[in-house]
Amino acid sequence: MSGDAAEQTDTQAAIMEATYRALCDHGYADLTIQAIADEFAKSKSLLYYHYDTKDEILVAFLSYMLDQFTVEDAIDTTDSPDDQLWSLIDNSLPPSPDPEQREFQVALFELRSQALSDEAYREQFTRADRFIKDTLADVLVAGIDDGTFRDVDVERTVELLATMLDGAMLRRTTITGDSTPATREALAQFIERQILAEE
Amino acid sequence: MSGDAAEQTDTQAAIMEATYRALCDHGYADLTIQAIADEFAKSKSLLYYHYDTKDEILVAFLSYMLDQFTVEDAIDTTDSPDDQLWSLIDNSLPPSPDPEQREFQVALFELRSQALSDEAYREQFTRADRFIKDTLADVLVAGIDDGTFRDVDVERTVELLATMLDGAMLRRTTITGDSTPATREALAQFIERQILAEE
Repeated sequence: MSGDAAEQTDTQAAIMEATYRALCDHGYADLTIQAIADEFAKSKSLLYYHYDTKDEILVAFLSYMLDQFTVEDAIDTTDSPDDQLWSLIDNSLPPSPDPEQREFQVALFELRSQALSDEAYREQFTRADRFIKDTLADVLVAGIDDGTFRDVDVERTVELLATMLDGAMLRRTTITGDSTPATREALAQFIERQILAEE
Repeated sequence: MSGDAAEQTDTQAAIMEATYRALCDHGYADLTIQAIADEFAKSKSLLYYHYDTKDEILVAFLSYMLDQFTVEDAIDTTDSPDDQLWSLIDNSLPPSPDPEQREFQVALFELRSQALSDEAYREQFTRADRFIKDTLADVLVAGIDDGTFRDVDVERTVELLATMLDGAMLRRTTITGDSTPATREALAQFIERQILAEE
């Protein structure tokens, strides 16, 4: 990488870090470019040079997260397929999220609701969904191959799991009471009865 | 009902009708009290007399819908329990929504995302969720009693179904492509394998 390109990558990474912190602190509705700039150690003009609106920064942030995130961040492929499946569930639906995870989940749902009317957000969440579904499918296929799982219909099972994880996110952020334990129990029962090979 | 009370009820019903039409036409973000007033045949000052903000009207609208909506609107209790279950699913996730249903679903999701930060919205959606879960539970119990369904764990099965319906709403409105057929297929497979009594 040339010096210029390396510097550009550093700048982008620093902007994305600042965006993450500002988003956790302020949430989407109250976020301003100024709030992101306040978290950004380098010059504010550099930020304005790259982006015109907070939505431009946030879409770039989603895209950056998706570029950086790999299967290895979500699962340990040396784990058994059922542990891998639970790692994916834990990743979307942590059993006891810390305050920062909670803030980020709420912010992420706020960004997701922008996808209702903004094609650029929709594109990033469609990419994220494709990644989650592909990863779930790979784990299911590995588990079918090694006999951990039954010979399930992979496509329908992935659809059910992905829809459950999306529903869990919506319930957790918009319904009173902590729905996470009940959702995890419902998922556990489904996995036990429909996915895990019979003893 | 006294003449005054009847008139008040008529006025409320007319405001709610106007709110429904304005919400379908404009969506949440672009909705104004003026747009609701334009759909309202009676005097605009009457509308302002009852409500100060569009959020006040919209929360009242959600509450009104929930007050009006009964189990009999969602299901025909003389149907078989499996038909009742599908009526509930069709109600949340129509197989081929018409344009008005689509508009209303998008608007309803916009209102739901207000529940992230607004307790009054959250309260109404929590009420709606309670209604859906209670109705699902009643249908499951009826089906277990008459032998249509297996002796499923009602609480966990209701949780899975309610989470699926919420996830379906989120996917349908924020991910590119029509996810409804795939979600319905995943639900059909779950119902067949986990809920319907074995032949």
